[in-house]
Amino acid sequence: VTRRGRIRDYGIVIGLGTPGKCNAITDVEGVRVGHVTLSKGEGALVPGKGPVRTGVTAILPYGGSPGSTGLSCGFFVLNGNGSFTGLDFIKEFGLLESPILLTNTFSVGTVYDAVISWMLNLDKDMGTRGEDGLPVVGECDDGYLNDIRGRHVTSAHVLEALQGASVGTVPEGSVGAGTGMTSFQFKSGVGTSSRVLPSEYGKFTVGVLVNSNCGKREQLRINGQHVGPKLRENMTARPAEGSICVVIASDAPLSPLQCERLSKRAALGLARAGCQANHTSGDFVICFSTTRGIDKAARRQKDLLINTFPEVADVCMDALFTATADAAEEAVLNALFAADTTTGRDGNKVIGLPIEVVTALVRS
Amino acid sequence: VTRRGRIRDYGIVIGLGTPGKCNAITDVEGVRVGHVTLSKGEGALVPGKGPVRTGVTAILPYGGSPGSTGLSCGFFVLNGNGSFTGLDFIKEFGLLESPILLTNTFSVGTVYDAVISWMLNLDKDMGTRGEDGLPVVGECDDGYLNDIRGRHVTSAHVLEALQGASVGTVPEGSVGAGTGMTSFQFKSGVGTSSRVLPSEYGKFTVGVLVNSNCGKREQLRINGQHVGPKLRENMTARPAEGSICVVIASDAPLSPLQCERLSKRAALGLARAGCQANHTSGDFVICFSTTRGIDKAARRQKDLLINTFPEVADVCMDALFTATADAAEEAVLNALFAADTTTGRDGNKVIGLPIEVVTALVRS
Amino acid sequence: VTRRGRIRDYGIVIGLGTPGKCNAITDVEGVRVGHVTLSKGEGALVPGKGPVRTGVTAILPYGGSPGSTGLSCGFFVLNGNGSFTGLDFIKEFGLLESPILLTNTFSVGTVYDAVISWMLNLDKDMGTRGEDGLPVVGECDDGYLNDIRGRHVTSAHVLEALQGASVGTVPEGSVGAGTGMTSFQFKSGVGTSSRVLPSEYGKFTVGVLVNSNCGKREQLRINGQHVGPKLRENMTARPAEGSICVVIASDAPLSPLQCERLSKRAALGLARAGCQANHTSGDFVICFSTTRGIDKAARRQKDLLINTFPEVADVCMDALFTATADAAEEAVLNALFAADTTTGRDGNKVIGLPIEVVTALVRS
Amino acid sequence: VTRRGRIRDYGIVIGLGTPGKCNAITDVEGVRVGHVTLSKGEGALVPGKGPVRTGVTAILPYGGSPGSTGLSCGFFVLNGNGSFTGLDFIKEFGLLESPILLTNTFSVGTVYDAVISWMLNLDKDMGTRGEDGLPVVGECDDGYLNDIRGRHVTSAHVLEALQGASVGTVPEGSVGAGTGMTSFQFKSGVGTSSRVLPSEYGKFTVGVLVNSNCGKREQLRINGQHVGPKLRENMTARPAEGSICVVIASDAPLSPLQCERLSKRAALGLARAGCQANHTSGDFVICFSTTRGIDKAARRQKDLLINTFPEVADVCMDALFTATADAAEEAVLNALFAADTTTGRDGNKVIGLPIEVVTALVRS
Repeated sequence: VTRRGRIRDYGIVIGLGTPGKCNAITDVEGVRVGHVTLSKGEGALVPGKGPVRTGVTAILPYGGSPGSTGLSCGFFVLNGNGSFTGLDFIKEFGLLESPILLTNTFSVGTVYDAVISWMLNLDKDMGTRGEDGLPVVGECDDGYLNDIRGRHVTSAHVLEALQGASVGTVPEGSVGAGTGMTSFQFKSGVGTSSRVLPSEYGKFTVGVLVNSNCGKREQLRINGQHVGPKLRENMTARPAEGSICVVIASDAPLSPLQCERLSKRAALGLARAGCQANHTSGDFVICFSTTRGIDKAARRQKDLLINTFPEVADVCMDALFTATADAAEEAVLNALFAADTTTGRDGNKVIGLPIEVVTALVRS
Repeated sequence: VTRRGRIRDYGIVIGLGTPGKCNAITDVEGVRVGHVTLSKGEGALVPGKGPVRTGVTAILPYGGSPGSTGLSCGFFVLNGNGSFTGLDFIKEFGLLESPILLTNTFSVGTVYDAVISWMLNLDKDMGTRGEDGLPVVGECDDGYLNDIRGRHVTSAHVLEALQGASVGTVPEGSVGAGTGMTSFQFKSGVGTSSRVLPSEYGKFTVGVLVNSNCGKREQLRINGQHVGPKLRENMTARPAEGSICVVIASDAPLSPLQCERLSKRAALGLARAGCQANHTSGDFVICFSTTRGIDKAARRQKDLLINTFPEVADVCMDALFTATADAAEEAVLNALFAADTTTGRDGNKVIGLPIEVVTALVRS
Repeated sequence: VTRRGRIRDYGIVIGLGTPGKCNAITDVEGVRVGHVTLSKGEGALVPGKGPVRTGVTAILPYGGSPGSTGLSCGFFVLNGNGSFTGLDFIKEFGLLESPILLTNTFSVGTVYDAVISWMLNLDKDMGTRGEDGLPVVGECDDGYLNDIRGRHVTSAHVLEALQGASVGTVPEGSVGAGTGMTSFQFKSGVGTSSRVLPSEYGKFTVGVLVNSNCGKREQLRINGQHVGPKLRENMTARPAEGSICVVIASDAPLSPLQCERLSKRAALGLARAGCQANHTSGDFVICFSTTRGIDKAARRQKDLLINTFPEVADVCMDALFTATADAAEEAVLNALFAADTTTGRDGNKVIGLPIEVVTALVRS
Repeated sequence: VTRRGRIRDYGIVIGLGTPGKCNAITDVEGVRVGHVTLSKGEGALVPGKGPVRTGVTAILPYGGSPGSTGLSCGFFVLNGNGSFTGLDFIKEFGLLESPILLTNTFSVGTVYDAVISWMLNLDKDMGTRGEDGLPVVGECDDGYLNDIRGRHVTSAHVLEALQGASVGTVPEGSVGAGTGMTSFQFKSGVGTSSRVLPSEYGKFTVGVLVNSNCGKREQLRINGQHVGPKLRENMTARPAEGSICVVIASDAPLSPLQCERLSKRAALGLARAGCQANHTSGDFVICFSTTRGIDKAARRQKDLLINTFPEVADVCMDALFTATADAAEEAVLNALFAADTTTGRDGNKVIGLPIEVVTALVRS
């Protein structure tokens, strides 16, 4: 197997903006990503045994402890056929107080519980002091390739993903929660991209990470070219259902309402790649700001009656919107470019995007 | 007719908190209220002629020009059977850039247009510079007493309400938009109340103004006592439909999310007075903060990339919630106490709350 | 300890309507409730050991298999400081395809996972056929009495609650998820109530079940009487934070929008009991209809292009609203009346409502 | 001036589906569209005098009287920087009981009031019987070309648009509310398109009409080709602000939730044309079904406790989504293709899309 490059490596450039150093969500300072990939076994499905094609991905939005800081946060549900825990707290307070975990549909409970364990370990007073502990966990269905009924993600895997999360380059494709993903009836998984705004707009960075599991072959568009209908070979038998989880990070000081606005623009970027939010797809977008938060201790201080928050000015919004949409589109495509052909349970096979064919189509 | 006092004048005290100086929304510094009351004619309805029992009420949220400042704002729609224009802008930006106007259902267009006129007069660049001008107008149906088809509110009336808006005591009952209102099958109209928080919570003031047109007789509760079922006499024939518009002002620096939270608590206060948000009632609550705003010029300044906003701390929220619920409950009751028996079109008569009977019931 | 009656046993009647046979959510045909109560140990908190004062409550909305039917469903989040999984699916499709589970805050993951297990057992194709399996789990914080960090609810407990769920009388107070609840700084827990509409409104039944963990002492109102301020003794030291989960069932064929509307009216009923949705309270209301659903097989049938649904007519809505608000208010009070004084971890003691004192106050 | 064709006339085909007979919203049986175009005067702006470049467009969703029927309806607000009246009623009841009117930002009040007049004329009991009359009016800002401060749309114009509404071909471009619109810094206006589903999905028709006033030149994409950056000539000086109003009609029996779902997919179609929902854009999408409604008389009938509604099955949803997204994309492009260069107030000139240049770019 030859190494698969990112879409930009093939001279296909999404939008007009400039990516950050790693062209990844980790270009936003302090954001870390950790994957645990579970892939073992071949052949017929034996629920509980395998084959296993799944994993967990952790996005840590802060350098420090999640027990100490809440970050400004908002979200947009493009299609609600899925589960993304913790959103009601975010809607009420505009704060993210949990890492964001991505996994398969049936492992949400395990992952949720493991995040509680992780939080309890960081904060010895949690639970005796008052309410706390509302993990943010999103899911996609990898049951076409994975023994999803077997729920092979364990608490230990979650802790490993959280503890191993790092800055810098983010592995893409069939890794972490992306291990069993399919998009446009091609193998897909995790993808990421970023943009840095020009100095007149504060040089803010926007990073996007997707776990992409959505789309029918005929819907695929690459840099706007509607190539899907020309790529009818090797389509998976399974109805091309799925979900997509999108995580946006920025060092612009976004208010909760602004986070929600960026989340909607990510959906517009997805649309340009052909995502249509099909009926059975759970399409969730969440956005947080690393520079507009509040220390939990400050939240509980009794004699501090007024806090002060920065908020990015209106003049930057269009540039932030473009950055978000472009990075979201590129992240979906990076996931496709990165993911190689995978055979999973019952010999179900999902082919990787035929990069040469596709790049030729796009350039023609 | 003897003068009708406010509920507190009869020794009935809602909640444990302390009202402001006027026990009115105008206790929040800078907030002004203006009424224009239209009442003329008797007898059979002649659409376009009368009898007229309607009006318009203006709440100006700022001392200065609405062309220059947007105030933090949020809302809650308890029951959407009505029209309250301008809410989508508020939801998107969390800003109130218009005065709030209340009137009858069929006069919304006229009032909307008159507010545009008023804005255009204040801001000579409005319209040539870019988008602007999204008036906030709420309505209640006064068609049981008023020739509502006649649409007797004119642009001049709206300007008069805006220009005549003042601080200090707010006339209640059958005034302004409240002229034709009915609640619990008693005459009702505008009511107001306020609370000042203790110094440990910053001495913030919360003021509430309602235009109350909701509730069936049997639903009425006064200071928690379910007196409605004991007051079956002189009920209006018309199904007790209607609406209620609730305006909350505070000098606490509330974020848009916090404004929405206070709006929900006002609904809880209404519930304690017996409001149930009946099927055909349009029940809208809007809340703004006078101390957390942004100058429009600042919004358009190109080299200011980050604004800074104050935000009241969590420690104050429960006190703000209690203040809001209590003031909303008292405002509904003040509207009933203030409004005298009114006969309108076709001899339709709505009796005023029989204060002596009611206070005796409550004290028993 | 003498047996504690329900509020109605003491001659205190909430509202004007008529309860169903059991005055419980189970009066709605087909609805079953199961509790597993975990109470063991005394003395100092040893996380992982105890003392344990927690549990799980299951509401099964259908007689048959949840694998086969989705029921019309809607919800209202009064205050989002909590977790209630599965709501996004309900918002998108207006369907409830899971039982509703209630437990403590830190056990959500375990319970979620256990419901998946239960679903997988009922539906052997789930997971290989396509997406499915989005459990609905709500939580309240019982950490003042319970070793919440110990997460003592196991998968077996959840299955026991689901399998043991039954029709008929519903145990109230310190049972199931209510074991460690506190409301108004009194011991509280599960409460339920129901109403049957008059025949002119179709004799529909509305049932409400709450797990009540909210309110400060001074906020308590019993049948509208603001008794809380007169009951200052034996208040728990802990800030009166918490949450309330409210489940509404009806055999009226409610559309998803109508379910959401009923959910808002439950909040109004809570308000009349003094619930104010304090800052740190997670207040969620969910409503489903047992007579407006769709078979999953029908949803997947390829040649059936149009389904047909019943929907209760507008003429019934006010009666349904009153029934919901009244039953919600009574359910909160029943929880207080049922729950006896409880001592939990670290000797933390929450007294039961002093029924005699309270009933005397209400009658005076 | 040569006649400008529609995009399809130039061999550029959006998506894979089949348009209806007129490739217009009027392909949905019973839907009618009426335009009144106001264009007079040249030269310097004299507010109140002109030049006038504005108008009003009416979409009548039913053949019969709006006084008699409510149609299933839902919406999506992509960016709330605008006014679209009547949405709260639609959210509460899922019903459209008004025609949909589009006009300029400052004429909303006049148009609202004119719709009330029109309704009152159709229904002589409206106003005396109970609440009613909540017009649906959307706006875009045409102040760059039009004397928007002059508010030249009159009540008579609105009635003319309503009464003149017709089936069949829909004039596009600089007509009706589209008269003063600008998109991507090209002249734009009204555009429309439709799709008919294959027979396996019931041959349902989806029609979309847009009033398009959004986008920066560099954002324009035509059939996915990012041509905007290559078309830098003749850009308007004004910041490319605006709005877009999107109306979706279908003869599929859509529930309110399904209408909302289609509305979101229209936004995805807009995205493919380059719409990014810029900061100052008010982007509203509304969708109604002509075959799932309820007669108002039925709504008020006291002895009919249960209604029955059809609802299109899940199996059709993806086809409906694709149809909606494709028709929305094509409608935006049709508006551009149809609208010719226009010079308005103060000599402000907005050039029409240079069709030959653009088609050459797209084909290359």
